[in-house]
Amino acid sequence: MSAPKLKLGIPKGSLQEATIKLFEKSGWKIKEHHRNYFPEIDDDEITCSMCRAQEMSRYVESGLMDCGLTGKDWILENQSDVVVVTDLIYSKVSSRPARWVLAVAGDAPYRRPEDLQGKRIATELVGYTKRYFEQAGVKVDVEFSWGATEAKVVEGLADAIVEVTETGTTIKAHGLRIIAEVLVTNTQFIANKEAWADPWKRRKIENIIMMLQGALRAEKLVGLKMNVPASAKDAVLSQLPSLNSPTVSHLLDSDWLSVEIVVSEAVVRDLIPRLKDAGAEGIIEYSLNKVV
Amino acid sequence: MSAPKLKLGIPKGSLQEATIKLFEKSGWKIKEHHRNYFPEIDDDEITCSMCRAQEMSRYVESGLMDCGLTGKDWILENQSDVVVVTDLIYSKVSSRPARWVLAVAGDAPYRRPEDLQGKRIATELVGYTKRYFEQAGVKVDVEFSWGATEAKVVEGLADAIVEVTETGTTIKAHGLRIIAEVLVTNTQFIANKEAWADPWKRRKIENIIMMLQGALRAEKLVGLKMNVPASAKDAVLSQLPSLNSPTVSHLLDSDWLSVEIVVSEAVVRDLIPRLKDAGAEGIIEYSLNKVV
Amino acid sequence: MSAPKLKLGIPKGSLQEATIKLFEKSGWKIKEHHRNYFPEIDDDEITCSMCRAQEMSRYVESGLMDCGLTGKDWILENQSDVVVVTDLIYSKVSSRPARWVLAVAGDAPYRRPEDLQGKRIATELVGYTKRYFEQAGVKVDVEFSWGATEAKVVEGLADAIVEVTETGTTIKAHGLRIIAEVLVTNTQFIANKEAWADPWKRRKIENIIMMLQGALRAEKLVGLKMNVPASAKDAVLSQLPSLNSPTVSHLLDSDWLSVEIVVSEAVVRDLIPRLKDAGAEGIIEYSLNKVV
Amino acid sequence: MSAPKLKLGIPKGSLQEATIKLFEKSGWKIKEHHRNYFPEIDDDEITCSMCRAQEMSRYVESGLMDCGLTGKDWILENQSDVVVVTDLIYSKVSSRPARWVLAVAGDAPYRRPEDLQGKRIATELVGYTKRYFEQAGVKVDVEFSWGATEAKVVEGLADAIVEVTETGTTIKAHGLRIIAEVLVTNTQFIANKEAWADPWKRRKIENIIMMLQGALRAEKLVGLKMNVPASAKDAVLSQLPSLNSPTVSHLLDSDWLSVEIVVSEAVVRDLIPRLKDAGAEGIIEYSLNKVV
Amino acid sequence: MSAPKLKLGIPKGSLQEATIKLFEKSGWKIKEHHRNYFPEIDDDEITCSMCRAQEMSRYVESGLMDCGLTGKDWILENQSDVVVVTDLIYSKVSSRPARWVLAVAGDAPYRRPEDLQGKRIATELVGYTKRYFEQAGVKVDVEFSWGATEAKVVEGLADAIVEVTETGTTIKAHGLRIIAEVLVTNTQFIANKEAWADPWKRRKIENIIMMLQGALRAEKLVGLKMNVPASAKDAVLSQLPSLNSPTVSHLLDSDWLSVEIVVSEAVVRDLIPRLKDAGAEGIIEYSLNKVV
Amino acid sequence: MSAPKLKLGIPKGSLQEATIKLFEKSGWKIKEHHRNYFPEIDDDEITCSMCRAQEMSRYVESGLMDCGLTGKDWILENQSDVVVVTDLIYSKVSSRPARWVLAVAGDAPYRRPEDLQGKRIATELVGYTKRYFEQAGVKVDVEFSWGATEAKVVEGLADAIVEVTETGTTIKAHGLRIIAEVLVTNTQFIANKEAWADPWKRRKIENIIMMLQGALRAEKLVGLKMNVPASAKDAVLSQLPSLNSPTVSHLLDSDWLSVEIVVSEAVVRDLIPRLKDAGAEGIIEYSLNKVV
Repeated sequence: MSAPKLKLGIPKGSLQEATIKLFEKSGWKIKEHHRNYFPEIDDDEITCSMCRAQEMSRYVESGLMDCGLTGKDWILENQSDVVVVTDLIYSKVSSRPARWVLAVAGDAPYRRPEDLQGKRIATELVGYTKRYFEQAGVKVDVEFSWGATEAKVVEGLADAIVEVTETGTTIKAHGLRIIAEVLVTNTQFIANKEAWADPWKRRKIENIIMMLQGALRAEKLVGLKMNVPASAKDAVLSQLPSLNSPTVSHLLDSDWLSVEIVVSEAVVRDLIPRLKDAGAEGIIEYSLNKVV
Repeated sequence: MSAPKLKLGIPKGSLQEATIKLFEKSGWKIKEHHRNYFPEIDDDEITCSMCRAQEMSRYVESGLMDCGLTGKDWILENQSDVVVVTDLIYSKVSSRPARWVLAVAGDAPYRRPEDLQGKRIATELVGYTKRYFEQAGVKVDVEFSWGATEAKVVEGLADAIVEVTETGTTIKAHGLRIIAEVLVTNTQFIANKEAWADPWKRRKIENIIMMLQGALRAEKLVGLKMNVPASAKDAVLSQLPSLNSPTVSHLLDSDWLSVEIVVSEAVVRDLIPRLKDAGAEGIIEYSLNKVV
Repeated sequence: MSAPKLKLGIPKGSLQEATIKLFEKSGWKIKEHHRNYFPEIDDDEITCSMCRAQEMSRYVESGLMDCGLTGKDWILENQSDVVVVTDLIYSKVSSRPARWVLAVAGDAPYRRPEDLQGKRIATELVGYTKRYFEQAGVKVDVEFSWGATEAKVVEGLADAIVEVTETGTTIKAHGLRIIAEVLVTNTQFIANKEAWADPWKRRKIENIIMMLQGALRAEKLVGLKMNVPASAKDAVLSQLPSLNSPTVSHLLDSDWLSVEIVVSEAVVRDLIPRLKDAGAEGIIEYSLNKVV
Repeated sequence: MSAPKLKLGIPKGSLQEATIKLFEKSGWKIKEHHRNYFPEIDDDEITCSMCRAQEMSRYVESGLMDCGLTGKDWILENQSDVVVVTDLIYSKVSSRPARWVLAVAGDAPYRRPEDLQGKRIATELVGYTKRYFEQAGVKVDVEFSWGATEAKVVEGLADAIVEVTETGTTIKAHGLRIIAEVLVTNTQFIANKEAWADPWKRRKIENIIMMLQGALRAEKLVGLKMNVPASAKDAVLSQLPSLNSPTVSHLLDSDWLSVEIVVSEAVVRDLIPRLKDAGAEGIIEYSLNKVV
Repeated sequence: MSAPKLKLGIPKGSLQEATIKLFEKSGWKIKEHHRNYFPEIDDDEITCSMCRAQEMSRYVESGLMDCGLTGKDWILENQSDVVVVTDLIYSKVSSRPARWVLAVAGDAPYRRPEDLQGKRIATELVGYTKRYFEQAGVKVDVEFSWGATEAKVVEGLADAIVEVTETGTTIKAHGLRIIAEVLVTNTQFIANKEAWADPWKRRKIENIIMMLQGALRAEKLVGLKMNVPASAKDAVLSQLPSLNSPTVSHLLDSDWLSVEIVVSEAVVRDLIPRLKDAGAEGIIEYSLNKVV
Repeated sequence: MSAPKLKLGIPKGSLQEATIKLFEKSGWKIKEHHRNYFPEIDDDEITCSMCRAQEMSRYVESGLMDCGLTGKDWILENQSDVVVVTDLIYSKVSSRPARWVLAVAGDAPYRRPEDLQGKRIATELVGYTKRYFEQAGVKVDVEFSWGATEAKVVEGLADAIVEVTETGTTIKAHGLRIIAEVLVTNTQFIANKEAWADPWKRRKIENIIMMLQGALRAEKLVGLKMNVPASAKDAVLSQLPSLNSPTVSHLLDSDWLSVEIVVSEAVVRDLIPRLKDAGAEGIIEYSLNKVV
């Protein structure tokens, strides 16, 4: 009997490069081929395949893949019956979560979704948008848009759009105004229900996620190491962020201690001056690959 | 009352660059803006707008545009009720017409559309494909594909695809086999029915098409000019392609004639040696911008 | 005694590429070298050198160069005593002439130059701007700007700017408002006064300009050639723009005429349909390199 | 029996792009494929193959190809027994012919080939170089160089080099001094001896060459057309280069003549002013694709 | 009352990218916008603005900015009355400091500044150059150069230039000879006098500089860690550069010590072999982000 | 007497960039110049020169260089009498060793080298290939190939080729079939025999190699650091790969230990989950520059 394999789906398109980079940091090399299906992965227990984020949850639901990464938006659009194992916050542009918003022309009279009764809405997210307006009791005509959706309002081809944005820059640049947030989305790691019930596959998925999360966490953290005279120990330690416990050890034949700690990169510029004031010396900062 | 305007639709995407180039050769400069809607055109009688080829016929049908260029495939997909004014044969890759073909894995048992009874077909052309199989009395499950359609068969996510191709190269490169031609397509110039009934708009459309056709024709033709002794006149003229009537004039104070003709570029390499043999001299070839 | 030489100055920077292209169309190949001074020109009667447009008129005035191309703005800025031989309308961006404008913040209270009494003006064109305000009797503080001048108003580092623009796009994109046009400029061909008095040099300069103008003119013109039945001669000729006299010749052994004419490219799209209506056939359009 | 085919060899590498362009101008489209052998050509009477210029004459000699384009230098290096049908002067860099030169360090004592007795020479052209020195009665050690040959003298790895150059720029840039010209080379069209004896193949080769030469000639020529009053006819015609006979025809109902001529592009800038002085008007210049 | 803000000036142009990178390493993300003024910085206590290095000291002096980074050369050129807080040695090309030098044609007779009496000097640094020659009692004519200053000497448009260089390569490539060093320059962090007197602003500036210096220092240092048997402790420690005190700790249940040290990257290639000879084992080297 | 110098040869071409990068990681900065000979190195005890990998061993053998890096294949091709100091496994494409293989057309009847009796073999490795077939007692005709060797079999210009490949992809893409492995190759560090006998040079070479190997080793290793309760010490340590001895130290005033270890990056994804299970906490992973 051959060894078990986990069928993993990698999203093609806007998330593709970021996903492959994240796996590389986490310990797996995924090599795409020219005709970009079945990418190679350096783990005998995994087979990879690629599909568009829009289609991923359908394939995971049907068991053609055991698990995969895709956007929460497309899972909901497809109404797929899958296990959402974890959120993974990484993206191509910014660190802000992506949002699908309802937008209209800057000078249009519409202020709320209800004002769009009887109007035409263009979007790529047709199913979710229809259900959104149904729940609000607003009757609208939702049309599939093949792209450049923002332009449709400007050109008079639609009255409103439902479109995804991280910073709102493109929306504003087209002179549109956001009147409602329809859906906040981010990448999720999903699994097929049967695969999740299989102990070997579940353990494998959990290990992959432990490494992905460890690599994501390390991107925002750094290591600090410093020498501290025994007399300044308390002063220095009191400066350290309370949730991290420092590693303190005695230096040989001296009254000095070595103190190491992992901290958020964002606080370092404020922390180092305070540590120096408290008596720390020889402070060095170094990068981390993973923090588990 | 303001002057009448023709609302012209330019296709965004794969045809966009070729279309704008063709208009430039024909005498109209279209300048796209960064946010690419409402491109500028240097003709006060025209306003331009852009949309995807997939959506063009819907907008022309509804009168949001008077006329536009798009693919025959998407007109049929949308079942739009518009006037097809003329075919325009130009494209981004080759001079062969594009075809939507039905393709299966190279080693699959399917030989004809009928063999696909009960199978899954992935395509971007969902409506037309459904009707194609209905007419053939074959029951299949047609799913919308977000791209990279060829890969779906290879990865086992679909049993067959309906996909567009000019040379078949990509289909073959994925190891697929074509089992039927579903639809031959090319660019068409379409008009809204009311716009076509308006004499001013119709005349304007006809003039535009006269120039577009004149520029397309000129791409395959060249001018030839040569000096011919009067005695060789018949020998030379008998070599010329019969459908083109040459311009022959007498040279001053001599027995020589000047002969000019417009011929297909493709025949020049065979024609010139024969003209020289027949007595022509000083043969020059030059390019043409338009031939009307 | 060695042959005389004309010392010609080519402007470096934004005009450089367009100038060298124009000379190539006109019949002179100028080859820049890596260390870009003394470019090679394929004419034994000319030596080329390059300097910034800003400095050109100083060097022509002092006789270090016999003649050169530069902007009218910098000739005026430098108050150089040179012969302006001709205007040459060509540029890097558009066919609109460039203008130096006075611009202020969009929401500033200034409406006219007079409103800027006592304020700070940033510009690269310090001398001309000072004289402009002196003549208007307005006292301002004019400061040299090293670039990115528009940003200075936005950042509060200046109250107004005098900056060059062709389309006004950059000015508007910074949220600035134009309140006056300070100077309209274009490329000019200038000559040193003594060089212009030298018959050989003057003749050489005039020949160069004849070719430069011939090449510029040809960019906007095309040749049309058509066959016309003798009976339609008047109808066709009456359609032709009056300022151009057509070349009409008789075709051998027939009642047809050959008609050739040079017309503005911009009118072709309207002219050809009218010519066809009037009876012309086999209309071809071709490009021109020079029209003198 | 199938139709005869001419086996044509296209040189890969530095001549490749220029050769394919020249064939395109001449009327044949050659399309290279990714794995670059057997390029497609749009002529059923020809099959193309590609090989390095260095190897071409060996394959033509052995009959694996009927004819091909390559450098005179490599024909001589290989001492191939082939028919040199014609020279074709075109190249990638300049219009000067390429030369293989003998070069030494700028400060070396060598002035003539004879001074190199007993020294080491690095070159890619080993065979020809050996014969060159043998004929001169100078004994040297010729070593094959894998490239960057100029550097070998600078680094002390060779005493002299034999290297190809068009302008001498690279040689000088390495601080080397040319002491002899070993071989002037250019592209040649060669044929296999048996192929040349076959009337059909010979005729096909001659037609190809007629078009190649026609396209090369046209690159340096332009057409001029002008109107001339009958009274100025002699004055104008006397200005025209004697080797070209102008095409002169009478204009309808007038005393004017139309004069057309093909002239070298290089003389136009001097000719047009003289033609205007002589009375010509409406002078236009246009480009030519081929002149046969 | 709103929180205090430090107005920080970032130099546009050649220093821009290096400066923004340095701030990123130091803990601040600066995001430039398309219209590049007021870049965003992720610190609520700072507002950024950008101006050319040439203008920075004028704006800091006048208080439009509290502090900024610019070149010492332009501070001196502008004779600005500002506090020079620290030197920061980083640059775009090399690690050598930039110098403004006085250069003449390679074959010119000038050997010393005094030899230029009565001559024309071209430079961008007009004010400083004038004062330099005045102090030397040499009368020269200093002209502002709009760029490509080296070419001016070659073309005979100036007798000498004062130009900035790091390696001298460009100067030499133009065939010029340096006859004096006019000014050695590097980046400096400057502050407005009043801002420096404000304790909150001064403390903020000092903290920023502590981090900038820490990041710059780390670029040239690495961490070394090794295991050392207790018996070899003295031999190993004696090899370590004396200015750095190593961190030594006892390993559990063994006679081995762990030794860590921060050393200059440049000495590692010599140090590691000596450490191995002295008995160290398992030597690893790692990178540092900051060393304070 | 001047200080001794080691003459080091760097291979030009496909290995060049990887070699210079490896030296940078190892502690030496090599700066190539435009005319790419005598690159600069920041070590007064070394002079660098560059030559093609094909020629390196000849120059090291003759003493023009003391040592150098090149491929084992070209050392054998040249039959050079040099000291092979060490293998260095790094390359431009993959981590698989490069192999010279004997390949034939996919549908050719040849299965073993012996089947090629009397056939033509094209290769760049002429000498080695001749000896290979001589030893096998097979008579073949080996011809030097100037490149694109795979195409020769496809075009019928050779019966088989001997060509280098890492993954076999190019070979397969040409439709060829590998029938034998002729030579496995990798980069080697070689030395001249006399230089190797010189103690100073040998010591210098050994130190360079220690650093090169240390940098190569570090590419595949990472550091792990974790905190472990004393009670879990044995459980954690038992998970660690046996060949690496961990650095364990006591934390101050606690029952926790700090454990550090250097492990292969490839095992981390499996090791971390097991370490967590065994009781380790705060596991961080960091990169290493060198491991000696």
